Amino acid sequence: MQKDAKAQVTKRLQRIEGQVRGLSRMVEEDRYCIDIVTQISAVRAALRKVEEEVLRDHVAHCVEGAIASGNRADQRKKIAELMEVFGRAER
Amino acid sequence: MQKDAKAQVTKRLQRIEGQVRGLSRMVEEDRYCIDIVTQISAVRAALRKVEEEVLRDHVAHCVEGAIASGNRADQRKKIAELMEVFGRAER
Amino acid sequence: MQKDAKAQVTKRLQRIEGQVRGLSRMVEEDRYCIDIVTQISAVRAALRKVEEEVLRDHVAHCVEGAIASGNRADQRKKIAELMEVFGRAER
Amino acid sequence: MQKDAKAQVTKRLQRIEGQVRGLSRMVEEDRYCIDIVTQISAVRAALRKVEEEVLRDHVAHCVEGAIASGNRADQRKKIAELMEVFGRAER
Repeated sequence: MQKDAKAQVTKRLQRIEGQVRGLSRMVEEDRYCIDIVTQISAVRAALRKVEEEVLRDHVAHCVEGAIASGNRADQRKKIAELMEVFGRAER
Repeated sequence: MQKDAKAQVTKRLQRIEGQVRGLSRMVEEDRYCIDIVTQISAVRAALRKVEEEVLRDHVAHCVEGAIASGNRADQRKKIAELMEVFGRAER
Repeated sequence: MQKDAKAQVTKRLQRIEGQVRGLSRMVEEDRYCIDIVTQISAVRAALRKVEEEVLRDHVAHCVEGAIASGNRADQRKKIAELMEVFGRAER
Repeated sequence: MQKDAKAQVTKRLQRIEGQVRGLSRMVEEDRYCIDIVTQISAVRAALRKVEEEVLRDHVAHCVEGAIASGNRADQRKKIAELMEVFGRAER
C-alpha cells in the first residue's frame, strides 16, 4: 500500500480497535441493547470505509501496475480477484 | 442482556478485537491488499453475528418484557426502535 | 393495507413493471452491460422503497392492532415475523 | 452480450416482470403484508442474479476484450466502471 494510504488505514484500524473494546465495555456495563446494536453498526460502517480505502489503493497501484506492465495474465488475475471480492461484498 | 448471551457476546467481541489488531499487523507487514480486504469482510461478518445475537436477546427479554407488562406505550417504543435499527441495517 | 398506501404501492409497482420491461428491451438492443447493471440497481432500489412502504403500513396498522388489542400471542407473532423479515433483509 | 447469456437473461427478466405483476395482484387482493414483503425480497434476489450474470458476461467479453487489445486507456475505463458499479452495490 502507498505510504499515505497505509498511515490513514492504520489510524482508522486503531480507532476501530478502540471502538470494539468500547463495545465490550458497553456489554459489561449492561448498556441498552439498542445502543449496543447502534454502535456495532457504526463499527461495521467504519470497517467498510477501510475496505473501500484499501481497494482504491489496490486499483490505483496493483491493478494499474498490471495495466502498465501489459502483462495480460496478471491483468486477468487482478480482474478475477476484484470480481471475487465484490461477489462477497454484494452478498 | 442475559448472563449466557452476555458471556457469548463478550467472547466474540474479544476475538473481533484481536482480528482488528491482526488487520493493523497485515497492513504494517504490507500484506496483499486482497488478503486484507478478505479479512476485513470476515470481521464485518463476525460483527453482524454479534449484532444478531444482541438483537435476539433484546427481543427475547426487553421486547418480551414490554409484551408481558401489557404496557402499550412501551410496546410501541420497542417496535419503533426495532424499525429504526432495521431501517439502518437495510441501508 | 390502508387505501392511500395501497394506491401508492400499486403505482410504484406498475412503474417497476415498466422498468423491468425496459430492461428486457435494453438487453434486446445490446445496450452496454454497465448501463444495464446500473438500471438493474435502480429497479432494486425502487423495490426496496416499496418494501419499506409496505412494512411501514404493516407496523402502523397490523402491529399497532396487535398492541391495541392487548393480545400477547398476536404481539409475539408480529414481532417474530418482523425479526424474520429483517433477518433476511440483513443478509 | 453473448447469445447464450442474452437468452438466459431475457428469460429471467420476463419471469421477473411476471413476479412484479404478481406483486400488484397481491396488493390488490389485500394479501398479508409480510407475504408481500417476502415476495418483494424474492424479486430483488432474482434481479441480483441477473445483475451478476450480466457482469460475468461483461468481464468475460468486454473487459477481456480490453485486455486482449492491450489498449491501456480502455482497460482503465473498464476498471473504473467496475469500481463504480461495485461502489454502488456495496452501499
